[in-house]
Amino acid sequence: MAGPHPAVAAVRGAVSGALGDVPAGALVLVACSGGPDSLALAAGAAFVAGSRARRGEPSWRVGAVVVDHRLQPGSGEVAARAAAACRALGLDPVEVPAVDATGPGGPEAAARDARYAALDDAATRLGAAAVLLGHTRDDQAEGVLLGLARGSGARSLAGMPAARGLLRRPLLGLARADTLAACAALGLDPWHDPTNSPADGDAGAPARSRVRARVLPVLEQELGPGVAAALARSAELLREDADALDALAAELLARAGAAAADDGAPAVLLDAAVLAAAPAALRNRALRAAAVRAGSPPGSVTRAHVAALAALVTDWRGQGPVHLPGRVAAARACGRLALGATPVGRDPDDAARAGPAAPAGQGPDDEGDPQR
Amino acid sequence: MAGPHPAVAAVRGAVSGALGDVPAGALVLVACSGGPDSLALAAGAAFVAGSRARRGEPSWRVGAVVVDHRLQPGSGEVAARAAAACRALGLDPVEVPAVDATGPGGPEAAARDARYAALDDAATRLGAAAVLLGHTRDDQAEGVLLGLARGSGARSLAGMPAARGLLRRPLLGLARADTLAACAALGLDPWHDPTNSPADGDAGAPARSRVRARVLPVLEQELGPGVAAALARSAELLREDADALDALAAELLARAGAAAADDGAPAVLLDAAVLAAAPAALRNRALRAAAVRAGSPPGSVTRAHVAALAALVTDWRGQGPVHLPGRVAAARACGRLALGATPVGRDPDDAARAGPAAPAGQGPDDEGDPQR
Repeated sequence: MAGPHPAVAAVRGAVSGALGDVPAGALVLVACSGGPDSLALAAGAAFVAGSRARRGEPSWRVGAVVVDHRLQPGSGEVAARAAAACRALGLDPVEVPAVDATGPGGPEAAARDARYAALDDAATRLGAAAVLLGHTRDDQAEGVLLGLARGSGARSLAGMPAARGLLRRPLLGLARADTLAACAALGLDPWHDPTNSPADGDAGAPARSRVRARVLPVLEQELGPGVAAALARSAELLREDADALDALAAELLARAGAAAADDGAPAVLLDAAVLAAAPAALRNRALRAAAVRAGSPPGSVTRAHVAALAALVTDWRGQGPVHLPGRVAAARACGRLALGATPVGRDPDDAARAGPAAPAGQGPDDEGDPQR
Repeated sequence: MAGPHPAVAAVRGAVSGALGDVPAGALVLVACSGGPDSLALAAGAAFVAGSRARRGEPSWRVGAVVVDHRLQPGSGEVAARAAAACRALGLDPVEVPAVDATGPGGPEAAARDARYAALDDAATRLGAAAVLLGHTRDDQAEGVLLGLARGSGARSLAGMPAARGLLRRPLLGLARADTLAACAALGLDPWHDPTNSPADGDAGAPARSRVRARVLPVLEQELGPGVAAALARSAELLREDADALDALAAELLARAGAAAADDGAPAVLLDAAVLAAAPAALRNRALRAAAVRAGSPPGSVTRAHVAALAALVTDWRGQGPVHLPGRVAAARACGRLALGATPVGRDPDDAARAGPAAPAGQGPDDEGDPQR
């Protein structure tokens, strides 16, 4: 008797591995768009759970969530078709929440945020123990290239984690070609998102689609067919790096004596000597985190801002305060770096106390409260 | 009076900034191939030194080294032409060492190694205080893409440093278009290396040339004209990360009690609990370094090898020894990880003492010598 197609076996093996720590009897939800990745995933999860049950072993219940993003005409039909495919595979329950992708950060980010919120909501409502996502190695590779184009360091290059909270990504070790082959071998007819195949020269197509359709193929042609796997490997290594560096930077920030005064004038006080002794990668991360703690909106602090903050630490020549996003200023005095709100000109007391010339934390009524 | 062309001014400003810590009166050498980057650099260095001297300030002497790699017919003429251009710019001395690029690692690596050795030799012989290299932002960007294709982590993605030892790279903040424009504005006629412009479909062209000619243009077209700058920014950030992580991993290795016995049977002994408590990014780097210290050739230890070593630390189930390149094996016993030479079957004493079942370092005559 011939075994299953190698791609089908690979998907099943990956799902089985990802469910190792999910207790038997629990509900597992597959996030399914009807595309090849998530349809192969749904089939794999149905098979793995079914085969355990057929062997008389305790197994999982497998359901599906098909999020209708309502971004294109006919999205409801696509979602209904995906839900029918999941039900045909034996998944139960199958939910089809419709969302409004109107959040901040552009349509792609808004759709992603709305999708994860809907998945989280369904998992909570149904009491699921895990939510399986169909991301493959190719998604990781695309993410690295998009991160490179932003130029914002290891965190933006780091890949998606295989597991975080309830989320599991069993297929990160597989190629998109594997999920396509698995669907074909199983006679499944996946939906192909037209926005994933932009016409040549369609500058308005989403960046990820352009990377998928036009950048990765050129990289593979010029640098060899292993590029997507190499990019995914880089993503995994850089995730480890980013996790370690973020944790060590948080330790450094605590050691430097981060103090935050929450009385409407957030301020952070840091020992410049402690920061100066740390490697640049940790110092710069700690300074970025300090700026956010002092009131700068996350994501708004640029490399140039961090460089100016670092100069207060490592290249101190008596320079003036550094102005940061969110009306935050940083100044150095008496070996300490103080980050706090700039005077807004409404309340003289506030301005005098929290301004960069006399930042909060240097007044007598602001005792240090490290690492609040 | 019109000032210089903006690209010329940018090159001069960059050179001036890079020479800030070089003492007046010292000799500065420009590594010049005759290409646009290094020719613009030579012109910039000549101008900066000359203008200080004309103002009566203490200045630098500026010379050049033109390395003839002898990889193509006519390379001697190209080198002679570059040397003549340097002399015409007023550089003195101008040396033209010829090298044999026959070292290991393929022709590109061999040529690079031979070039740096020749520059180092010339700097020592002439007593130079700095050697200027013409690498631009585009070189950084290409390096990141080549590192991604290898998939070997932050170090292989990290950019070239702006300064290391005598070497200075003043033009890392400039684009190749800037050096081309500077040469044109100065009436300089740079050499264009034909291997940098491979014909379409020339799969035998060097990988870097293919990245330059065909990958970066597609990235810029699909992701925007800022991609090279973003890649260079990533390279800079990842260099900081890699430096910090390597230093912290070396500390971890020392703390875990690395012991090396150098009596022909190198062995390393590590405390598994210390390694287990560290973040994965540090643990994996420390384990890779330990394998090299135990005798595995640098560069031969793959991610899979490291993962198997890490499993001995974090996923210990009594598994057998891990075999590593260079006839090294690692085994865990009594909470310690021992890496040492595998028995080679020639000397029974050696085999019995250094084999993975009883690695060196567990015998009575091998007292710990931490961090030799």
